[in-house]
Amino acid sequence: MGSVDTELYPQASGAAASLVAVHTAPQPLKLYAGWFCPFVQRAWIVLEEKRIPYQYIEINPYHKAQSFLDLNPRGLVPTLGCPAGPDGKETKPLYESNIICEYLDESYADTAQHGPRLLPSHPYERARCRIWTDFVGSRIVPAFYRFCQHQPHSAYSIEEARAEFLAHLKTFTAEADAEGPFFLGANISMVDIALAPWLIRLWIFDHFKTGGLGMPGPGQGGQDEVTWARWRKWAAAVEERRSVQETTSSKERYIPAYQRYADNTTQSQVAQATRSGQRLP
Amino acid sequence: MGSVDTELYPQASGAAASLVAVHTAPQPLKLYAGWFCPFVQRAWIVLEEKRIPYQYIEINPYHKAQSFLDLNPRGLVPTLGCPAGPDGKETKPLYESNIICEYLDESYADTAQHGPRLLPSHPYERARCRIWTDFVGSRIVPAFYRFCQHQPHSAYSIEEARAEFLAHLKTFTAEADAEGPFFLGANISMVDIALAPWLIRLWIFDHFKTGGLGMPGPGQGGQDEVTWARWRKWAAAVEERRSVQETTSSKERYIPAYQRYADNTTQSQVAQATRSGQRLP
Repeated sequence: MGSVDTELYPQASGAAASLVAVHTAPQPLKLYAGWFCPFVQRAWIVLEEKRIPYQYIEINPYHKAQSFLDLNPRGLVPTLGCPAGPDGKETKPLYESNIICEYLDESYADTAQHGPRLLPSHPYERARCRIWTDFVGSRIVPAFYRFCQHQPHSAYSIEEARAEFLAHLKTFTAEADAEGPFFLGANISMVDIALAPWLIRLWIFDHFKTGGLGMPGPGQGGQDEVTWARWRKWAAAVEERRSVQETTSSKERYIPAYQRYADNTTQSQVAQATRSGQRLP
Repeated sequence: MGSVDTELYPQASGAAASLVAVHTAPQPLKLYAGWFCPFVQRAWIVLEEKRIPYQYIEINPYHKAQSFLDLNPRGLVPTLGCPAGPDGKETKPLYESNIICEYLDESYADTAQHGPRLLPSHPYERARCRIWTDFVGSRIVPAFYRFCQHQPHSAYSIEEARAEFLAHLKTFTAEADAEGPFFLGANISMVDIALAPWLIRLWIFDHFKTGGLGMPGPGQGGQDEVTWARWRKWAAAVEERRSVQETTSSKERYIPAYQRYADNTTQSQVAQATRSGQRLP
């Protein structure tokens, strides 16, 4: 079981390989990562956005190093190794990608050194940012995998899966700041970063799925044209972001990996949870 | 469909009725609530812990007031009506119980007036607090409903449901501060409040389910005795807490409501999601 997954390319490629190359030296803060994993990419984007010094450590999901398992017995990436102890030489683990992102924003809070905060300062706006970050994780991401893993024998049709996914993207977009380009306005925030890794993977639907992504092109959105125009503005701003581009590997390396999602044969925890209708891990 | 649920008693009773009685006057901050709902109780406990002025508004789930639906079209409780606008006389909505709780902790942050913060001040400890709050919502609460709604024809046995639920409680307890009595130590925090509403509903398993809750009594925990002793210490501290007791209605009012969960006939969104194996709403 899961043997096909061992063919996953072992390391980052393309732009992401260049970024990894300059983050191999030991640092107190360590990102235990998988180049392929969109949840890892959230944390990685935050590290880059805030110009935080960190060490990137690629975890082979089929041969996990004991030092990694000692830190996080669950063995999931992303895991963040955080400096701890009186002299900062001990390491304590954190996991759950959104929790890691918020930790980084709070720990590296000096705006002169690390740029604008990724959550608004006003409590109401912070809460609203968390509601839509939660919407990404609880609605958009699960619908992405149901669509991607759809098979001819699935209990739902591919049209239903596509419609559900696009409806969630519309709901999300309708709540974005009207001007943008980002969800909360001129500055990138946690909401944008929560969705960015799946945005840059949207090509897989046109590549693998009958009928493709099915998102209306410019002028084709009918009564939703304003919403889809706003979506395109958001998507362009996020896709062009340096932190997003530089944490992305070569498309040809993603193709064999997502082939296994599209065939619904991957044994990843996300894929298995989607297959059984369970909440994502 | 759902007609039996209309028999839900229409208002808080017991200690909770006394608390509602002193929170009926209009206030800028409004808690749209259901006396029965454990997710509401989380927010309610925070309001009480921090001695925040608020207005309690009971929402009849079968006849939702238009003013409530205007504020939150999803129509779910808890919804918090937050003061907004230049003079604070407008109202903006928040939902998702844990997000409401964090909003209240951040908005009413003056410790002289509102007591100790409910999240630790150090970013690592805050993140750890969020990891275990997330564990309550993603592991313990869903297992509670799978156990409660188990039926003879379920795809899983009641022994499996009970073992899964107790295993999650043990995992949680093993991560608690050794001394306590609360999860993080001497002070109550967001983790304790996230689980408190389900703690005070544990009697329903002995009341409704064959074999009962099945938690080992003092001295009966075998190799887990230390963990279960720590659990009992935590449970006693949380059950005795004024904010928990005063937001709890009379047991006899919960019985007919949980009878419908135990029979798996309730049409609540949580129950329906549990029945279909979906993520809780």
